[in-house]
Amino acid sequence: MSDAYELVYHAGIPGRGEASTEAVFIRLFFEATGTPYVDTALTGGQSAVKPYLDGSFQGADENPLPFAPPVLKHGNVVISQTPNILLYLATHIASSVDLESGGTEGEPAAKKAKQSAMSVDDAATFHANAFAQTVLDMNNECHDTHHPIAVMKTYEEQKDAALEKAADFRSARMPKFFKHFEDNLKRSKSDFLLESGPTFADLCLFQVVDGLKFAYPKRMAKLEPEYPKLMKLYERVKEAPRIKAYLGSERRQKYSMGIFRHYPELDGDE
Amino acid sequence: MSDAYELVYHAGIPGRGEASTEAVFIRLFFEATGTPYVDTALTGGQSAVKPYLDGSFQGADENPLPFAPPVLKHGNVVISQTPNILLYLATHIASSVDLESGGTEGEPAAKKAKQSAMSVDDAATFHANAFAQTVLDMNNECHDTHHPIAVMKTYEEQKDAALEKAADFRSARMPKFFKHFEDNLKRSKSDFLLESGPTFADLCLFQVVDGLKFAYPKRMAKLEPEYPKLMKLYERVKEAPRIKAYLGSERRQKYSMGIFRHYPELDGDE
Repeated sequence: MSDAYELVYHAGIPGRGEASTEAVFIRLFFEATGTPYVDTALTGGQSAVKPYLDGSFQGADENPLPFAPPVLKHGNVVISQTPNILLYLATHIASSVDLESGGTEGEPAAKKAKQSAMSVDDAATFHANAFAQTVLDMNNECHDTHHPIAVMKTYEEQKDAALEKAADFRSARMPKFFKHFEDNLKRSKSDFLLESGPTFADLCLFQVVDGLKFAYPKRMAKLEPEYPKLMKLYERVKEAPRIKAYLGSERRQKYSMGIFRHYPELDGDE
Repeated sequence: MSDAYELVYHAGIPGRGEASTEAVFIRLFFEATGTPYVDTALTGGQSAVKPYLDGSFQGADENPLPFAPPVLKHGNVVISQTPNILLYLATHIASSVDLESGGTEGEPAAKKAKQSAMSVDDAATFHANAFAQTVLDMNNECHDTHHPIAVMKTYEEQKDAALEKAADFRSARMPKFFKHFEDNLKRSKSDFLLESGPTFADLCLFQVVDGLKFAYPKRMAKLEPEYPKLMKLYERVKEAPRIKAYLGSERRQKYSMGIFRHYPELDGDE
């Protein structure tokens, strides 16, 4: 399909957009592969999301109602769930992510990418998918550190539980997840999670590390030296020309009150 | 590939196995499609899991270390993450699940199934995958009602937070998830989540309803009449010959202390 890709997500407050939502994992893939995309969070305002919330969106009849944004619209196809969208993009655009070239605006990578789209006949597709899902599990657990009880209540209403949850996340969960990624990076013959080179899973891993450096700076300063392969991957992705251009652009919104939040009382060395 | 499928999971206490783990979603797919599989939780004891925890498992060199069981071994391929395993099976065995026939032990469905394995060129694959991921999100939230703070601590150590979390799950989250499924079942031209008929996503939905009926019987008794399409799907799957045979067999373990736990103090009408 040569249809345009449209990422549908809640619009942020103008000038105070929110980098730390699940949509950012999808943006990173578009940016890293040089794939043109429309990002309604930046262009469409909240009215762009409304049809997907009330079910009046256009597309093929058999498109289900999404549970929640982010939503991907591609021609007549409408799909939701972040790891599902990432897999759709990997199987339709590119199996591997080129971290060497690019950096100029709008440079199309779709043609080259299409030739090497991921296939379900390749075990690597399911290896990348498992890594991405584990990163998104960590992302969800990070969200729950400031919202352990109820997603619709404020942090302040669940602060006591948040303090406990964050302490466990810092001491038990962060090392457990990081060890999993570090062990796999040691085992891989490339500098990436898969031996075949960078995939969307590495982009997801970059993002969760970046978010945790914002949310838990004290804890990360303590942990980073223990996971040199992970931090090398983080720096490598950050310096990739297309990623670097994206991070320096207005398309990369700031962290504030999304998944990755910095509450000093939730952070700590241990 | 004609290799055998091996589901690797922790062995339960003999005679007191645990139905309510993520592995049950995978078992249901094998059972519903009549696909032969080895279930190490029943046959291999805990020693069958050890190689996947310590990384000494055999298979292709490029198989990553899993984050946690369940793990699927299929020939030289080793993959993890429940929704990822389900998608692997759907794309390798069968796109649709036959709820009409079968019921006898070991009846092979693999040949017929192979002809209609899911394809990434079909949007329905990603629709089914999104539904399955949403069901598994609900499953995870149900787990967190008794473990809102720390997965490695006991329920009793986090009971205050659990009471709050369960109250929110019952009043806000259960209706939100159920409405999503009911709305989609109303919209579908079949009695299943996808218009094309039953898929692994419907099996997942059956399982989460079954588990919630065990864990939250009061709340479910109140909610069930509000979601007639959902409950019709639940009953339809439950009565499918192969599923019925499975549920009545020793292969279907009992609920006890897994994801779906019945603590009367966490349940309630509202």
